[in-house]
Amino acid sequence: MEDIYKRSVALHEEMQGKIEVTNKIAVDNTDTLSLVYSPGVAQPCLEIEKDPDKAYDLTMKGNTIAVVTNGTAVLGLGDIGPLASLPVMEGKAMLFKKFAGINAVPICIESNNTRHIIETITRIAPSFGGVNLEDIKAPESFEIEEKLQGLGIPVFHDDQHGTAIVTLAALVNAAKVKNMKLSDMKVVINGAGAAGIAIAKLLRCFDIDSELCVSVKQLIVCDSKGAIHRFRHDLNKAKTELLKYSNFDDVKGDIHDVIKGADVFIGVSKGNLLTQVDIKNMAPDPVIFAMANPTPEIIPEECFLAGASIVGTGRSDYPNQINNVLAFPGIFKGALAARAATISTEMKLAAAYAIARYIENPTKEMVIPSALDTSLAHVVADAVEQAVYHEREMEKKISAAEAGDSND
Amino acid sequence: MEDIYKRSVALHEEMQGKIEVTNKIAVDNTDTLSLVYSPGVAQPCLEIEKDPDKAYDLTMKGNTIAVVTNGTAVLGLGDIGPLASLPVMEGKAMLFKKFAGINAVPICIESNNTRHIIETITRIAPSFGGVNLEDIKAPESFEIEEKLQGLGIPVFHDDQHGTAIVTLAALVNAAKVKNMKLSDMKVVINGAGAAGIAIAKLLRCFDIDSELCVSVKQLIVCDSKGAIHRFRHDLNKAKTELLKYSNFDDVKGDIHDVIKGADVFIGVSKGNLLTQVDIKNMAPDPVIFAMANPTPEIIPEECFLAGASIVGTGRSDYPNQINNVLAFPGIFKGALAARAATISTEMKLAAAYAIARYIENPTKEMVIPSALDTSLAHVVADAVEQAVYHEREMEKKISAAEAGDSND
Repeated sequence: MEDIYKRSVALHEEMQGKIEVTNKIAVDNTDTLSLVYSPGVAQPCLEIEKDPDKAYDLTMKGNTIAVVTNGTAVLGLGDIGPLASLPVMEGKAMLFKKFAGINAVPICIESNNTRHIIETITRIAPSFGGVNLEDIKAPESFEIEEKLQGLGIPVFHDDQHGTAIVTLAALVNAAKVKNMKLSDMKVVINGAGAAGIAIAKLLRCFDIDSELCVSVKQLIVCDSKGAIHRFRHDLNKAKTELLKYSNFDDVKGDIHDVIKGADVFIGVSKGNLLTQVDIKNMAPDPVIFAMANPTPEIIPEECFLAGASIVGTGRSDYPNQINNVLAFPGIFKGALAARAATISTEMKLAAAYAIARYIENPTKEMVIPSALDTSLAHVVADAVEQAVYHEREMEKKISAAEAGDSND
Repeated sequence: MEDIYKRSVALHEEMQGKIEVTNKIAVDNTDTLSLVYSPGVAQPCLEIEKDPDKAYDLTMKGNTIAVVTNGTAVLGLGDIGPLASLPVMEGKAMLFKKFAGINAVPICIESNNTRHIIETITRIAPSFGGVNLEDIKAPESFEIEEKLQGLGIPVFHDDQHGTAIVTLAALVNAAKVKNMKLSDMKVVINGAGAAGIAIAKLLRCFDIDSELCVSVKQLIVCDSKGAIHRFRHDLNKAKTELLKYSNFDDVKGDIHDVIKGADVFIGVSKGNLLTQVDIKNMAPDPVIFAMANPTPEIIPEECFLAGASIVGTGRSDYPNQINNVLAFPGIFKGALAARAATISTEMKLAAAYAIARYIENPTKEMVIPSALDTSLAHVVADAVEQAVYHEREMEKKISAAEAGDSND
């Protein structure tokens, strides 16, 4: 591990920036110059002034997003500030380009004030077709995302929804392998930060058009103090809201108690939390997604020794790497293609199912595609785009019905 | 002209963005992924957190600028808004890349509020090594630039200083061709907007280390109401400040009066303003820089018929195209190389002289390099970089002297 850090610094020093802005055509004569710049450029400007939608046809906007952070929750490093988070944002931008062909621009905001961040993103929005919020600490990130839903372009907090979508995809396939219904599974999530909360919400969604119903009925979320239940008085707003989705029997106790009898453990917490005893206390042949980075809540070897059937982690050196990169490039590609104004729940579910279905015959060793698969994002994008069109169709029908224009 | 507008729209439709964000290395295996992104990327982050200057070594910051507008004064189109100005900003970004290899990111800000624009730029500054302000209307642009001088990275309003630098370069060579000293020339500037004011200020600077002294002693600036003098009561702050630099004799009258006897006319106003009679009323063999776009204050053919010796315009279809692109790529390249915190007057003068000297033997038909010359920016960058080092050296000496450490 030491070595990878040294090599990474050396590579960063050599590159002085992992991404660059490049010209799509050469400007090497007066004619081209007068088309891409003054005087010719005046005409595309005027067309956009007349019809703002034309910005998607005539500029980079429709294929360009901002990757926005304030550096308060970067990787496992915590609050390192906006400047120090730039290498991560550049890396993220590389993934957007590689997997989805999207231009992603790192915007590192110098502010810990929620209102200021919302204002800043609102003001710079004209240049961008979407905003990926990244590594902003909770609960600020929740409020920022929520308040920006009316911006007119999709704003997506990847640490929440990216993780939730990929986890759901893995769980759908795990259920298939185990020949169980999601709705019959007892699921425990450990970690009630951005990712844990988003996973809980997504596991309780219904996709009415899908044969697979996501509604996990038996769901308990734990934070560092144990199960989140209605008798606790120390819950913040987001955790309180979780009670709409989880722990209807108000189970109490720490993770070691709560995990007993569970079919699925989803860890988005910290390394070395569980032991073989915990796994043995679960239902037979349990599913373990131990996603703490870089050290999982329990390493796969121990899971298998204790009788787990399917194990996933966030790491590339084990099978079933549950990695956001499976979701966010395709989500944005689809949203941009459909010129969606938000990333709706239907779009998230469409993405999760597309990722799950991408593996025709899931096995214990493969419930989720490889993080380096370069075709997946396009499949996810198609599904997300279709979800937008489907939602628009539904809205039209509802509007028509409400207006009394229905033929029924 | 009709044709160029249609062709420009067609080209923009085909390209859907003239610039893109690209990866500098391929991410096609797990090892590279773990170096450019998690987990390896944590180490460059931590190094920058410890020493913020390292952002210049380890990220794109040191070679990336924001091209910022709010779309209130775009080309000759006026206030078309931030979204409609995006094609121009993309074009500008192309020029930064082509001539200086700089990554330029269009940031179109949705606001006409000066304070909000200053705030927004301040907050997004961590991602960038510099800010090029573009097409923001005066006087807001003056205040924005002025208030951002403490940002820590260079903030440069190209409509002001780019034009001023290139005009000075052309004038230095025109003086050489005419075998006159700048200080002996009577200069009239028509237009008291961003460009006119910046030109006036730069023509009154002294570059103490240069053999060429810039101090134009006889300078009059006109706005649409004629000469700006001390007895006018309709002057805004910027125009009032101009009186520090110009019209010490309080000459009155409109441009047709004021131009009489002048050696140099500098037009940054509007087309078809002057006639042959005006040129004939100037001093013998006058210099005419008629830079209104797309139609100059007077076309070169008429200037020559009326006896002008040297004529420049903003257009590429006449000799002596006085174009900002001769200055801004090299200015930023030099400023970034030196990690300058501002673009000082000394740097502007260094750029102007470098552009002028780039032409070894200026002639009437060539007082300024071609706008498509790809070597110039590097020469300008070197001069600007050296100017920064020279200023730092001077500051050190002054500090040393003040501290009583001088050996004298």
